[in-house]
Amino acid sequence: MSQHLPPLAGRLTGLTSSAIRDLLKLTARAEIISLAGGLPDAALMPGERIAVAADAALRQDAALQYTESPGWGPLRAVLAERESARLGRAVPVDEVFVTHGSQQALSLLSEVLLDPGVLVVVEDPAYVGALQVFRAAGARIVALPMDGEGMRMDLLGELLAGGERPAVVHTVSNFHNPGGVTMSPARRQELAALAQRYGFWVIEDDPYGELWFDRPAPAPVATYAPNVIRLSSASKILAPTLRVGWMVAPNAVCRAVELLKQGADLCGSALTQQIAADLLGDTDWLTTHIDTVRAAYAERAGALVGALRERFGSRLTCTDAAGGMFVWADFTDGTDTGTLLAHALDAGVAYVPGQAFSVSTPYPHSLRMCFTTGAPDALAEAVDRLDRAVAAQGQGAVAQR
Amino acid sequence: MSQHLPPLAGRLTGLTSSAIRDLLKLTARAEIISLAGGLPDAALMPGERIAVAADAALRQDAALQYTESPGWGPLRAVLAERESARLGRAVPVDEVFVTHGSQQALSLLSEVLLDPGVLVVVEDPAYVGALQVFRAAGARIVALPMDGEGMRMDLLGELLAGGERPAVVHTVSNFHNPGGVTMSPARRQELAALAQRYGFWVIEDDPYGELWFDRPAPAPVATYAPNVIRLSSASKILAPTLRVGWMVAPNAVCRAVELLKQGADLCGSALTQQIAADLLGDTDWLTTHIDTVRAAYAERAGALVGALRERFGSRLTCTDAAGGMFVWADFTDGTDTGTLLAHALDAGVAYVPGQAFSVSTPYPHSLRMCFTTGAPDALAEAVDRLDRAVAAQGQGAVAQR
Repeated sequence: MSQHLPPLAGRLTGLTSSAIRDLLKLTARAEIISLAGGLPDAALMPGERIAVAADAALRQDAALQYTESPGWGPLRAVLAERESARLGRAVPVDEVFVTHGSQQALSLLSEVLLDPGVLVVVEDPAYVGALQVFRAAGARIVALPMDGEGMRMDLLGELLAGGERPAVVHTVSNFHNPGGVTMSPARRQELAALAQRYGFWVIEDDPYGELWFDRPAPAPVATYAPNVIRLSSASKILAPTLRVGWMVAPNAVCRAVELLKQGADLCGSALTQQIAADLLGDTDWLTTHIDTVRAAYAERAGALVGALRERFGSRLTCTDAAGGMFVWADFTDGTDTGTLLAHALDAGVAYVPGQAFSVSTPYPHSLRMCFTTGAPDALAEAVDRLDRAVAAQGQGAVAQR
Repeated sequence: MSQHLPPLAGRLTGLTSSAIRDLLKLTARAEIISLAGGLPDAALMPGERIAVAADAALRQDAALQYTESPGWGPLRAVLAERESARLGRAVPVDEVFVTHGSQQALSLLSEVLLDPGVLVVVEDPAYVGALQVFRAAGARIVALPMDGEGMRMDLLGELLAGGERPAVVHTVSNFHNPGGVTMSPARRQELAALAQRYGFWVIEDDPYGELWFDRPAPAPVATYAPNVIRLSSASKILAPTLRVGWMVAPNAVCRAVELLKQGADLCGSALTQQIAADLLGDTDWLTTHIDTVRAAYAERAGALVGALRERFGSRLTCTDAAGGMFVWADFTDGTDTGTLLAHALDAGVAYVPGQAFSVSTPYPHSLRMCFTTGAPDALAEAVDRLDRAVAAQGQGAVAQR
């Protein structure tokens, strides 16, 4: 029967599922310790506190009905207060817009800010959720490498001096996914200055900023210029099930996103937005809760990075994991992380090869590891298994000679 | 500062908020009886049952985490069972896709099915939420009038015979919003036959089908052809806050929508989808609940239609309100419902003028009235006020001569 179905739109040609999603299906076996996922640890999420908030919200009819497209008013007020503190200026409620996770903000912003063919600058390695929507919008993508201070502003400066005029520069400013690094204060100021000088938008995508381990993340890029659109989310500090992300942006951007949100899905869930408002507004509880998540992730990150350095020594370099959810590592001995993956799965460990995040640079020797869902001893065991996989690959290579 | 902000995308030009939304802002005053909205009655929504389901769901970590893009598995299984009964064939779970309300299905389908410039046929008057996304996709819209049996298939046949080849025909098959009519069984079979003969997709948008008053809605259009994509929603039978809509479509369509959903917002809320699965799977409870909603809406619809016919007699014709949420009426005495609105607001009643749903026909003498949120005596009072508004407009017209 299916051969008689009408065609789909031609513009879908070439759209493919993310390599990471396909990989995750392979790594779901119980005996595999997976560092491949990108999920926060559900065991650290405040299920009971959410249940209390849900019960309280559901005593009011408003929790059952449609809510406003820009988000439930009291949630926007709580977010405005939090973001005012973070940005050091009074953020009006009109400039706060609640989205269905940060991903929806990226998707709607790509329609609001990008005409087909315009240039978008991203970081290399890149956050694939952003790449996907920028590509779908028909943007031309240029990826600029990062070093230990984040995106290389010297290279962005060269690009601009050469006459390129991006519509948007996208950055995951804190504890980069997948790169693991945080943009330095100096680079943030440079980026903001370039954005104002050359008239482009910056999307500062910041889901991980509160998950710092030893010291708070630097002041946001949005502190330094009005044309920075700041995104964050409750997914990593509370729970993804709330589907509450938010955007802080100039009023004109919020109103354009509002029009598109009406067509995209009308509005978010009044229930989950009321839960989010309750928890984010309960500041004493929230501080304690986030401290608990931070401490747990810090211990896990330390265990993973410690084991990697102890086990591989100079054969591998990796980020310090000062916050967030990910460690990025590069083999210095020529190990190919693409072909290594089969050996790793045999040895009972999974990760994402660097090439999955590649735009310009292929990253054949790199890998991303997520440390949130493993206990410290499981992470050490994962590194042991990774070492055995590297050894097995080496023997296979010898056997083939 | 705002004059120094970078520009927004050029393709946003001409995108405007819906006239209905703007109108609703004017009609929110407490002293106005509003028939202008389109909301189900929150007082009839099962808040306590939802609270019980939320509490049960939140005992499991899975209710806190990200869920699958096509929807939480057990919810899709419940929906597959319900839709199998409705369609009289076994609907596989792979052909059920959960969306963030039906609106998201319309939005994602417009990307999956429509290339810019293709023809989309809608009903006149049209469901504006669908119009908005079809226009945003760059489709060419042709609206075909309805009569008491729904969309005029003779006119669709003429269009096709004349060489037009739509990519999609969209219909709100049951208790049309705003038109109030239900497509007859014969028209459904004609539509399905034309879809197969000429190779176009039908989107059967059916949020109201279970809200019948005296007799069940006819078998869905999707019963008669494989190239019918069926949409429905929990918003009108349970609560909009769940943001649970669903699509039944061939596997190729579901997989294309899945790719786009990943970019649009990753996934829905595990919590609200688990609540929906609990309530939709609790069939005895659900039957009783929907019967209660039906009985209440039937009483209100009867009160509104009865009052309109008693008060206006032959000066106005209106639909029978056999289900759903809306009555469509036409003044036969030349009353202009656009200019009448100011008098109506003065008299303390609001409605939506027909022109808000216009594509080809201007509907200057028509109006849409929603009966869900008023008690029967309030609806009768609303009709009294409408009558006073018509009288006031008539006097104004005399005074101007």
